Formats: sequence, C-alpha cells, structure tokens
Amino acid sequence: MKSVRDLLSKIKSPKDLKTATDEELKCLADDIRKFLIESVSKTGGHLASNLGVVELSLAIHSVFDSPQDRIIWDVGHQAYVHKIVTGRKDLFHTLRKYGGLSGFPKRIESKHDCFETGHSSTSISAGLGIAKARDLNGENYSVISIIGDGALTGGMAFEALNHAGHTNTDIIVILNDNEMSISQNVGGLSKYLNRLRTDPKYFKVKNDVEYLLNKIPAVGKAVYKTAGKAKDSLKYFFVPGVIFEELGFTYLGPVNGHDIKELKVVLKRAKNIKGPVFIHVITKKGKGYTYAEKNPDKFHGIGPFSIDNGKVIKKENTRPSYSAVFGNTLVSLAKTNPNIVAITAAMPSGTGLNEFAATYPNRFFDVGIAEQHAVTFAAGLASNGLKPIFAVYSTFLQRAYDQVVHDVCLQNLPVVFCIDRSGLVGNDGETHHGVFDISFLMHIPNMTILAPKDGPELVQMLKYALQFEGPLAIRYPRGESEDFTSISNDYTIEDMKAEILISGKDVCIVALGKMVKTAIEVAKRLKKQNINCTVINARFAKPLDDKTIISECLKVKNIVTLEDNVIKGGFGNQVLTLLHKNKLYDKNIKILGLPDQFIEHGNTEELMKAYHLDVDGVIKHIKKMMNQ
Amino acid sequence: MKSVRDLLSKIKSPKDLKTATDEELKCLADDIRKFLIESVSKTGGHLASNLGVVELSLAIHSVFDSPQDRIIWDVGHQAYVHKIVTGRKDLFHTLRKYGGLSGFPKRIESKHDCFETGHSSTSISAGLGIAKARDLNGENYSVISIIGDGALTGGMAFEALNHAGHTNTDIIVILNDNEMSISQNVGGLSKYLNRLRTDPKYFKVKNDVEYLLNKIPAVGKAVYKTAGKAKDSLKYFFVPGVIFEELGFTYLGPVNGHDIKELKVVLKRAKNIKGPVFIHVITKKGKGYTYAEKNPDKFHGIGPFSIDNGKVIKKENTRPSYSAVFGNTLVSLAKTNPNIVAITAAMPSGTGLNEFAATYPNRFFDVGIAEQHAVTFAAGLASNGLKPIFAVYSTFLQRAYDQVVHDVCLQNLPVVFCIDRSGLVGNDGETHHGVFDISFLMHIPNMTILAPKDGPELVQMLKYALQFEGPLAIRYPRGESEDFTSISNDYTIEDMKAEILISGKDVCIVALGKMVKTAIEVAKRLKKQNINCTVINARFAKPLDDKTIISECLKVKNIVTLEDNVIKGGFGNQVLTLLHKNKLYDKNIKILGLPDQFIEHGNTEELMKAYHLDVDGVIKHIKKMMNQ
Repeated sequence: MKSVRDLLSKIKSPKDLKTATDEELKCLADDIRKFLIESVSKTGGHLASNLGVVELSLAIHSVFDSPQDRIIWDVGHQAYVHKIVTGRKDLFHTLRKYGGLSGFPKRIESKHDCFETGHSSTSISAGLGIAKARDLNGENYSVISIIGDGALTGGMAFEALNHAGHTNTDIIVILNDNEMSISQNVGGLSKYLNRLRTDPKYFKVKNDVEYLLNKIPAVGKAVYKTAGKAKDSLKYFFVPGVIFEELGFTYLGPVNGHDIKELKVVLKRAKNIKGPVFIHVITKKGKGYTYAEKNPDKFHGIGPFSIDNGKVIKKENTRPSYSAVFGNTLVSLAKTNPNIVAITAAMPSGTGLNEFAATYPNRFFDVGIAEQHAVTFAAGLASNGLKPIFAVYSTFLQRAYDQVVHDVCLQNLPVVFCIDRSGLVGNDGETHHGVFDISFLMHIPNMTILAPKDGPELVQMLKYALQFEGPLAIRYPRGESEDFTSISNDYTIEDMKAEILISGKDVCIVALGKMVKTAIEVAKRLKKQNINCTVINARFAKPLDDKTIISECLKVKNIVTLEDNVIKGGFGNQVLTLLHKNKLYDKNIKILGLPDQFIEHGNTEELMKAYHLDVDGVIKHIKKMMNQ
Repeated sequence: MKSVRDLLSKIKSPKDLKTATDEELKCLADDIRKFLIESVSKTGGHLASNLGVVELSLAIHSVFDSPQDRIIWDVGHQAYVHKIVTGRKDLFHTLRKYGGLSGFPKRIESKHDCFETGHSSTSISAGLGIAKARDLNGENYSVISIIGDGALTGGMAFEALNHAGHTNTDIIVILNDNEMSISQNVGGLSKYLNRLRTDPKYFKVKNDVEYLLNKIPAVGKAVYKTAGKAKDSLKYFFVPGVIFEELGFTYLGPVNGHDIKELKVVLKRAKNIKGPVFIHVITKKGKGYTYAEKNPDKFHGIGPFSIDNGKVIKKENTRPSYSAVFGNTLVSLAKTNPNIVAITAAMPSGTGLNEFAATYPNRFFDVGIAEQHAVTFAAGLASNGLKPIFAVYSTFLQRAYDQVVHDVCLQNLPVVFCIDRSGLVGNDGETHHGVFDISFLMHIPNMTILAPKDGPELVQMLKYALQFEGPLAIRYPRGESEDFTSISNDYTIEDMKAEILISGKDVCIVALGKMVKTAIEVAKRLKKQNINCTVINARFAKPLDDKTIISECLKVKNIVTLEDNVIKGGFGNQVLTLLHKNKLYDKNIKILGLPDQFIEHGNTEELMKAYHLDVDGVIKHIKKMMNQ
C-alpha cells in the first residue's frame, strides 16, 4: 500500500482517484481529515461539515468524472474535500483570506465548481436546470446535487424536488443526512428521516411482506386477486423513503456515508438509473476529530483553534458580541414581558438565542432553515397579540423579502427583526455579507429601521422595539460590540431621534450603526488638523430624523453620510433626498457606502480599507471634497 | 323548506348558519352560486375558485365559530363566500372597485378576516403562528388554514407543514384540491394527490391488509412476530396521505368538497383531534357554472361577462396586451434561437406563454407556484449555455429576491426576467401591484433593468435581452400595449441609451416605461400653454444613460422624473443621485412616483389620479415647481 501522505500529495485532479483501491481511498480519507484539521486549525473555517463528507466526496469523484459530470454542493461550505481533490490543496493556507481561496464553490477558482452556492437549499434547482440544459443540448453526463438534511427543510428544495420528480430527468440528489443543520435539526421531515435511519420496522416490514408474497402463495394469491397489481403497490409502500418515491424519485438508502466501498456501489447504481434518483447517505458531522464530533455546532464555522484541546484561539476581548448583547437583553426583558417570543431559522447559537431557548423553551421557536415560514409565522404570532422577535442574519432575511412586505408590513404587524451580521461579515464573503438589508427594507411601507452605534444602544433599541406598534428592524454587525458610554450622554431612544455626538463647523458626518465609530475616529483625527466635524449618530435609517439632520447640515459646507450597506437604495440616498427636498443646494455632499458590486471575502478591516470606508479612506474622501 | 332566496338574504353572520339543516345549506349553496355568477358577471373578479368552495365555506362556518375560531384563506381570492356569510353580501356590487369591497381578506373589512392574504402558500405559517399564540395565551379555539393544491407546491407551505407536524399544535389544514392552481397543476406532489384521489389501490390495499391481519390469524401472527408493532406500521403505510402523516399530521380524506353533510362530519371529527390535522377535500373549480367548469383558467380572474354565453364583455381595443406582445415575440424569436427556453411559475396564460408552451413543449417549463425554484432553475439553465426567460408578475418575483441576488446576479448569469404587471395593476390591489420591482432590483450588482414605452419597444428590448450577457429585467405593465411609432423614429435598443422623444427648453421630463405616455401627453398639453418640455424615454432604469440625461437636464431649469414604482429606492432616486453627482444644483427637481404606503385596489386610472400621477396631476406638479 502506498504511503498515505504520498497519495494525498499526488492527487492533483479527480482522475488520480480513479486508479486508487478502496483501501487506498480509505487511507486517503484519513489523511485528508488530518490535513483538514491541521489546516483549518490555523485559518479557521467550516470544519465539522467537511469532516463529515470526506468519504462521500472521494466516492463521488471516484465514480463520476468532474468537470464533465456536474457536482453541485448545496450551501457549499462542505466543499473543502472537493477543493482538495480538484487541485486546490496547496492554497488551503489562504482559505477565506483576502485574495485567497474562497470557503465556498467559486466558478472563477476551478472548472470543477460548476455552480456557486452559499445560501441553503438551491442545489436541486440548479442541478435540475443544468440537467435540463444538458438534455436540450443533446449531451450526456451526470448531474449530482449534494444537499444536507438541514437544507432540505428549506422550501425551495421541496419546490425543486416536486419539479424534478415530475420531469423524469436524469438527476442524482444525494441527501447528506447528519441530523444537523448548524444546530440540531427540527421538523416533521427530520423526524421522518430519523425513522428511516433508525427504525428497524422500515426494513423488517419490507422483508416480511416480500416473504409473505413470495413464500406463502395463498396469501400472495389472495392479495393479487383482490388488489390487482397489489404486489407493486405493497412494495411501493414498504420502500423506505416513501416521501421521495411519492414525489417521483427512486430512493436508494440509507447508506453509510463513511464506507467508501458501499458509497461507490450505490453511486454506480444511481448512475445507471433513469430519471431522478435520491440517495440517502448517513454521515457524522465532525467525523474523525473528537472535539468536532462532540460539538459539531461549535465546529461548524470556527476560528483558529488548538488541535490538542479543541479550544478556539481567541484574541483578548473585553466586550461581548452584538449577538450576545441581543441574546442577554432578550432573556432579561422576557422575564417581565410574557408576550416576547423568539424565532430562529436554524441559528439559535449564531444569533445569540441559546440562553433564551433554554430559559423559555415554550416561547422559543426554531423553525429550521425556513426564513419565509419564520417571517409569516411571526406575523401570525403578532396578529394574535404576541411580540415576536425574529433573530436572523441579514443575508438570510433576503429569503423572506416577500413575506416581510406582505405578511408583516402590509398588515402593519409588530414583528421585530433583529438583523445580525449586517454590513460586511468578513471571511465568508459574497454570499454572507449583509450589505443589502437597508436597500431591501427601506422602500417597504410601514417599516422602521434602526441601527445602534454600540452595545448599550442595542439594549435601548430592543426596549424601544418592544413597545413599538409596527414592523421594526434593528441591524447590527458581526463581532464584538462597541461601548461609547464615555462620549454619549443620552441612550434613550425616541421616535425618529438622531443623536449629535460631536459638534463642529466644517463637516457634518451623518453615520449609521457601526460606522458611527469610524465617524468618531475621523472627527478626532481631523480635529488635529483643525478641521471640525459634527458627528450625527442617525439611529434611525427609516424614518430619518429630518429635523436634526437638516439643522446640523445647514451649519456646515460639507456633508458626508456613512453606512456599511450598498449606496444604491441605502441610507445615504435617503439623506440626499432629504437635503434636496430642503434645498440644501450649496453644500458639498458625499455619500459613502459600498459600491454596486459583490464584495469578496477577507478580513472585514481589510475589506473596509479596500473600499475606502476605513478611517483613512473617509478622511481622504472628506479632504477631497473640501478641496473642490 | 325555506325559500332559498329568503335564506341567503337572512344570513347576516355565520351564526345564522348554525340552525340550518343540511338540506337548507344545500339550497343556500345553490343560491350563493347564482348570486356569485350574477354579481361577478357585472363587477368581474375571481369566479371559478369561489364557485369551487361554496359548500366548503358553508360547512366551515357551520362547524366552527368565526371570529372566535380563526379561518385563514390561502391566497384569499376564494374568500367571496366567506365574505357573503360574514355580512358583506350587500357590498358585492362594489367588489374590487376603488373604495369598495376588496377581492381578498382584509382585516379592516371584518373581524372575520383574521389574517390578510394575497400571495400563495402563507396560510399554514400564519395559522401556526396564530395557534401557537393561542396556546401561549391559554386560549381555546380552532385555527383553520384553507390552502389549494396549487399553493401547496410553494416551498413555504412545506416549510410550515414541516414545522407544524413537529410541534403537535392543534391546527387544521384543509387542502382544497381542485387539481388546478390557476392553470393545470404540475409536479410530483400533484401526481401524488392525483393518485390519492383516483387510485383504488390506495383504498383496496388498506382494506386487504386489515383483512389479512384480522381475518387470517396466522398471517397476522407472523407479521406481529417478525415486525414487532407491525400492525401499526402496516396501517401507517396504508393510510392514504402518507406524506402528510409522515410529516406529523393526521390525514383525513379524501372528502367530496361538494357534499355539505360529509364535510361537516369530517370537520367535526378534525375539531376533536389533538395535534395537526390535514383534511383532503376534493372540489371542482367553477362548480355549478358550465362555462367556468369547462374553462376554469379563463374564469379564474375574469372581467365582466355575459352569463348566457360565458363571453367576456370587452371594450373595443385594437392593440394587444403587453403579455401578448411578449408571448408572440418570444415564439417568433425562438424559431431561430434554439437556446431560448421559457419558464413560468404556474402562470402560462397570464404571462402570455401559452403559445410558446404549445409550440416548444420541450423548451417550456411550468414549475408550479415556486418562484424561488424558478429563478435558481433558470440560473442552472443559463450556467449550462441556454437563454432562460422567466416570465413573472412583478409582485410574485418578490418571492425570489434572494435567488435573483445569489443564483443569478452573483454569478452574472444571462437570465432574462420578463416582469409583467409592473406598476399598478388595478382591482387586485395591495398584494398585486408591482410597485417595488425597481427598488428591489436596482441595488443588486450586475442587474440591468429596462422598461419599454410601448409594444414595439418591448419587441426590441426582448431582442436586446437575448444577446445580452448578464442578468437583465424588462418590466412592463398590465393591459393593452401602446404604440408610439408615429412619434418615435428609432426603436433600436443600444447599451444604456435613452431616447429623446420631444425637445423643449423649459422642463425636462425623464420618464420610464408606461409613464412615457403620460409625459408625452403632459408635454402636448403644456405646449398649448407655451411651456416647452423635453421628454426623455429612459429605456434603461439601470444603468442610466447618464450622458443623455445630464446633457438634456443642463438645458432646462426644471426637471421631473416619472415612474410607476415607489419613489424610495426607485428610478427617480437614481436620477437625483446622478444630477447631484454632476452638480446640477441650480435646478428645480421633482421626483414623481408612488408614495411610501401600500396602494389600495381600484381602477388603475382612478388610482393614478388619486396619487397625482395622471396627466393633470403631473401638470400641477410641474406648474407648482415652475412657480417656486
């Protein structure tokens, strides 16, 4: 047998797997695990999900011929092994870094990444589109979508299954069933999959019926006689995976997802079946690294960690994250307000709701990866007197835009959206930056949008939100919260009221949320150069505090708006409209925010610098404006 | 027996149904049908779906106590009978008219409308929210969501079923299965429901197995022995509706939806079952009116018609609808371009794709009510070399915002969105106006947005779209197309090129799409008053033709932008930003569009007048601006 390390270093393309024996592949799997653990312990990244699909990835690349055959990884953060065997192993030290390897499939990176993913539940739709185009083009190859059991709860996955089952197109859907999305999975479907995995009845009964029909002729005959093609019908009912069979798929499984041999057998079989095939593969998230197996949630997306003890290597920080501020405040407020209920779409930990869930299990709802349902469910709760808080990442709220419009805002229902990970999120990149939320919420009638400058302000905004009688969103960024209690006197949130933090005669900076910190630092730096800035903490992105903004802007010649949202349709655009309405024509106005392009992955600070939204960048903008 | 007419006139609230006999309810049903046909033949409205749920609505209101019990009508256009029996019969002559009765449930109209709907697939989510709030409030009543089999293919319905099945909350979901959404239903689920409805095996086999287990002890014993609780397991498998049972619901049905007695029995049974119940009711769309039964698609939403022959009473029009222009052009272009494929989400007729579907069945995809899947499926097709056209109503594209962002624009794939029913649509009201599309597409990187001034321009824009290498949207309004070939010389669409239709020295009107017509008429009227207008047909909402707009605006003192989208985040906002960037500070600028509020139902012309966007309104704005 070849040296394991040797084999890994020799894999430059999936072709190199074709000649490997099952035993060699098994060793290779071990070696890839070691590589993944070592590499991600340094760079951070999605570890547990990748450890879970090592054998599955190798088996797929052994049986199928990428890039001719098309492989689509749902969500995409589990594509590391795929990246390793498609020639990107040597770039793993740059994983998720600015200019480095993406943590998700990227068409620009490799011809083996045929479709980009990032959000959940898209792979079957994309795969079906690719397969239909193949058929129309008269081509012949396999299309394989790999989707987790968590992602399968997302409605569009069902929409795609429904369509695929109907079309009879050759497509292979592989269910990577690890009983987890990021957290433990929930829902009727999850329970059903669990029965398939664990209930011996599903197998025994199948055998029993076949036995009865074949071995006891009298019974078989009786059944045939009375029920026509009853044998088919009976078999049909006893096949595990009846839901998928009913939708039109051939169901294969469950298969042990860590047995390469078994996986190869079932994949080969699927390759030769006409029409849509559904392969149910059971994997263990975190497989092969004890700490990740025990805490797959923690090791889902993780920063650099110590391999020896599984502990995250943290920089010293004294302040809690915004998610923690949110979660702790909500737990505290819920004590005295029984109307508060909290909702997450499969992100209890990430959104800071774990403690709330533990403290108020009856008032906490994890609806699975199902943002659309989450929002309308919240609207239902609100219509019946409760005060639902939907804690959600900015980028995932995009999934429920229509529900926000129709089910919440049209009925003017008091649902609170706590929008975490707004602005740039850093290393997850394009698909995870929360840079559109102001733009997609701003134009919805009845919506109110706030953003806190720091942790204590988030607390006050939550209190404000709870007494507010209409749809309201609070957006706050990823990571450590700020604390400006030393320079801000009044944290009381009043309707549409902005806060003047610093007063100056030369420049007025109207900043929102996280960018208030930048504005303060800009003002401090410019003061040393005898340029005096006013800094307005807008607090409200919608409706604006027209009065404060106008009266402060009237005092200066130069006006800057600052936001970490795209400029188009954003906060600054509204300020510009306001200034225009009030005929502040003789001013220099500069709207700063993110440009009209998708922002790549990288450290948030690096990205802010690259887009000239760091302190230096803003100062340059201001000076340029003043020299006009 | 009471006179039928008599009974209908006496029904002022659902309470009045409680004392009626089944026979009386049956007569009442006949009478309501006559009333519906007569009334809708005059006002127009959703006829076929309401004729299908007459008995179901009466049975629900007989068994349950609205408003204490909560009834949520999915989509909501089938709530006419519900409106009739909840005291709104006398308002039916105002149906869908400005200031009149809404065609959908409206909380402001009645305490019996507990949750507003309009878009598909929301009722289970809303119902579950209401039910959970009931439980937390310690209240006790039934919550009933009525959803069509078409709406059930929408992913969020599945998300809600998955959640509801898991929670064990008391909620009743009634599947109104008429084998139709608006058109014939599609998909694996539809086939499955069809089997439940029609396949005797589903019933026979159930009986056979029970027979075998009960009557042939040896067999029963053998099964028990080998399979533990096999009887439960067997029964479980043989219950029709296994998909819903697997998700955690108690499945009841199928039930004849036109048999009031049977309906009442099953509803009463459902009322007493703990946990989520799924009732499968079979109805006939258009029931009781021959023309509607034969053409449920045509009678889904219909204008005033002749009862005698079922023909729509049309005003004379000489020009085809925009939908027809789109559909015909696509059929013609597809002849020479085999890469063209077309997608609809259950609206082949409404979007004008019927002929395409008939001519190129292999290149046409009706994916069901599944806009999210439709968009990502289109992205898959585009990623594999085809040119997918997704024809969709503006308001329904809202469902797929995230997929437009991530699956199309992020990968910069050449998907063409043909956005029908943009702007105000008239009588369907709030939930159907397409007044947000510019705002929710404008800020998405890589997106190009066009709007034609008339039919011939739509043809050219389609040609342009087909050679365009990136995501592109063309938005056009509901109804008859215009034709300005007499005043426009050049219909060639060039990258980012606007068209100057009229030149004048006083006012520059920058108009988009449908509003170009208004601009032309305004210019004509003002010319008579010696005010000379330039009229720019913008053609591109994104990216703007900066050069033309700036150079024309420089020539005048007064600038007006005109759009039938909300102002926030819309077209005019971008023009304002452009003018500001180019320092056109000494101009009067007025941005005209829809305000930051939901727009009610009514005739489009009435609504445009009410919001001062008709010719008179725009002229007033301009004169006011000029007098400043």
